[in-house]
Amino acid sequence: MPDFFSTAIAHPNIAFIKYWGNRNNELNLPASGSLSMNLGALTTRTMVRFAPSLAADSLILNDAPAQPLALERVSRFLDRVRELAGTPYHAVVTSTNNFPTGAGIASSASAFAALSLAATTAIGLQPDEASLSRLARYGSGSACRSVPTGFVEWLPGDTDADSFARTIAPPGHWDLVDCIAILHSKHKPVGSTAGHRLADTSPFQPARLQGAPTRLAVCRQAILDRDFNTFAKIVERDSNLMHAVMMTSIPPLFYWEPASLELMKTIPAWRAEGLQVCYTLDAGPNVHVLCLSKDVPEVKKRLEPFPQVQRVLVSPPGGAVQLVTD
Amino acid sequence: MPDFFSTAIAHPNIAFIKYWGNRNNELNLPASGSLSMNLGALTTRTMVRFAPSLAADSLILNDAPAQPLALERVSRFLDRVRELAGTPYHAVVTSTNNFPTGAGIASSASAFAALSLAATTAIGLQPDEASLSRLARYGSGSACRSVPTGFVEWLPGDTDADSFARTIAPPGHWDLVDCIAILHSKHKPVGSTAGHRLADTSPFQPARLQGAPTRLAVCRQAILDRDFNTFAKIVERDSNLMHAVMMTSIPPLFYWEPASLELMKTIPAWRAEGLQVCYTLDAGPNVHVLCLSKDVPEVKKRLEPFPQVQRVLVSPPGGAVQLVTD
Repeated sequence: MPDFFSTAIAHPNIAFIKYWGNRNNELNLPASGSLSMNLGALTTRTMVRFAPSLAADSLILNDAPAQPLALERVSRFLDRVRELAGTPYHAVVTSTNNFPTGAGIASSASAFAALSLAATTAIGLQPDEASLSRLARYGSGSACRSVPTGFVEWLPGDTDADSFARTIAPPGHWDLVDCIAILHSKHKPVGSTAGHRLADTSPFQPARLQGAPTRLAVCRQAILDRDFNTFAKIVERDSNLMHAVMMTSIPPLFYWEPASLELMKTIPAWRAEGLQVCYTLDAGPNVHVLCLSKDVPEVKKRLEPFPQVQRVLVSPPGGAVQLVTD
Repeated sequence: MPDFFSTAIAHPNIAFIKYWGNRNNELNLPASGSLSMNLGALTTRTMVRFAPSLAADSLILNDAPAQPLALERVSRFLDRVRELAGTPYHAVVTSTNNFPTGAGIASSASAFAALSLAATTAIGLQPDEASLSRLARYGSGSACRSVPTGFVEWLPGDTDADSFARTIAPPGHWDLVDCIAILHSKHKPVGSTAGHRLADTSPFQPARLQGAPTRLAVCRQAILDRDFNTFAKIVERDSNLMHAVMMTSIPPLFYWEPASLELMKTIPAWRAEGLQVCYTLDAGPNVHVLCLSKDVPEVKKRLEPFPQVQRVLVSPPGGAVQLVTD
């Protein structure tokens, strides 16, 4: 009997309006909607091979066997794909990132988006985009946003069926660029899956969620209008609100490093001087510095002298998850 | 006609359960109760001389004429004292701190506590402690806490009459020490009077206030029980909650410096290793590191190597505002 294999690529995404906390942990239904941009310069490439001869699933991450917990998470995800297809076969999953591992760039979004498409294709399914986004959501919530192209909104939904992401504008709509200041980091981060479970222990999470639909509407319109100044203010504010919730959860989560704070204090001052630039931080210390493509050289020139900035990765908006032929 | 003069000393205080935001700005009625310790090693000394011959109030701060805004604030305060006494005379106010100016140690609390006692005494009034605390509150909210001795609670009150501070334990009750890590600071701070007005622009302030009575009760009991571990957790949490409100106000207020955050990440790690220590930050970048007196040498030894720590000021609990004879 032949093998069934397929390879897909996907991009991580940076959230402008954040996802933090679930209304349903089992289904990964988020507590609010969120909005992001795929990062076209960063790519995860994942091959899945199902074969009747395999006794168990296996996972090779960046050319090395994965840790047992990572394998278990992928295997649970594959169970869902096998159930959809009515197929019992195990799989070999081989996944590589073109961006540095351990640099604090979350790869679970691109990993599960690529895995969703590669696994369903290999096993003979042909889900539409919304179904693929819903499936990716089970692997990692924000992975659903790495399925559609460009600027993407995750509709929170009330049930599994209506919680998926869709494009609000294609990559070419706006020449926005993410200059990711990768920081030298001393402190071990808390994984975001564990973090999401703590969101409700902050007394501030309800007020954060209450304002989320308004912030989302403001940010969506700013993107559609290519209105950088409105975009900058709402993006920084939404990041601050999420981190304030994190810092006031029990136990408190401090994802910022001192250098993150230094940049967070400096970037609005650059904007006040006239440079169109703003910051946002996910569940980690790296500072995502957003600007227009014409200003990338200036932004890099200003970021690189900071002693705690290890390197600056630059990415334009990216496309959808897609199949590739090896 | 003779001069009327009097000199008083008072200590600044460090809040364990914070005051941030008013329910009534005109009366300086706080949005919640707060709890603090006077800092006995830091002293403001204020002389007030009323004289019929003076054409206007004047203010000498640390041996130099004060800025017009500072004089205006003191003069408005003296108007209240004059009204209480039914006396029209102007005054010369001379005030000095024994702690470094511009080091980010707020002196308005000790300044208005000392001014309250010196001015009322000079003008011939003899207010009781609660009345003196209420009067000091008009000068600067937290000044009311520098009037009574030791560990002090500010009862928020509903009206002018019932919003004052009282001692919950004398200075000798607990050998708690504040090791103030004074940081080299690049950024100009926002004054706390302006900051208080912004508290209600944070969507998180209502939830912060809702939990304040419980945190206050927990902290009060921990002080009465000399229970350092309970004290440490509630003090750090209350500080984080206040700063989360500050960072999410419009405009956002970031009082932390990168080095503040570095210490905030380090100090709980020391506690996890067994050293009884915790942090709190007021509306400024300095980190107040609380420990027991036996551990001061160890805490100083650990704080001083941080390159951004300019110096460490050490203070035990302090007494009440009091008259002194020159």
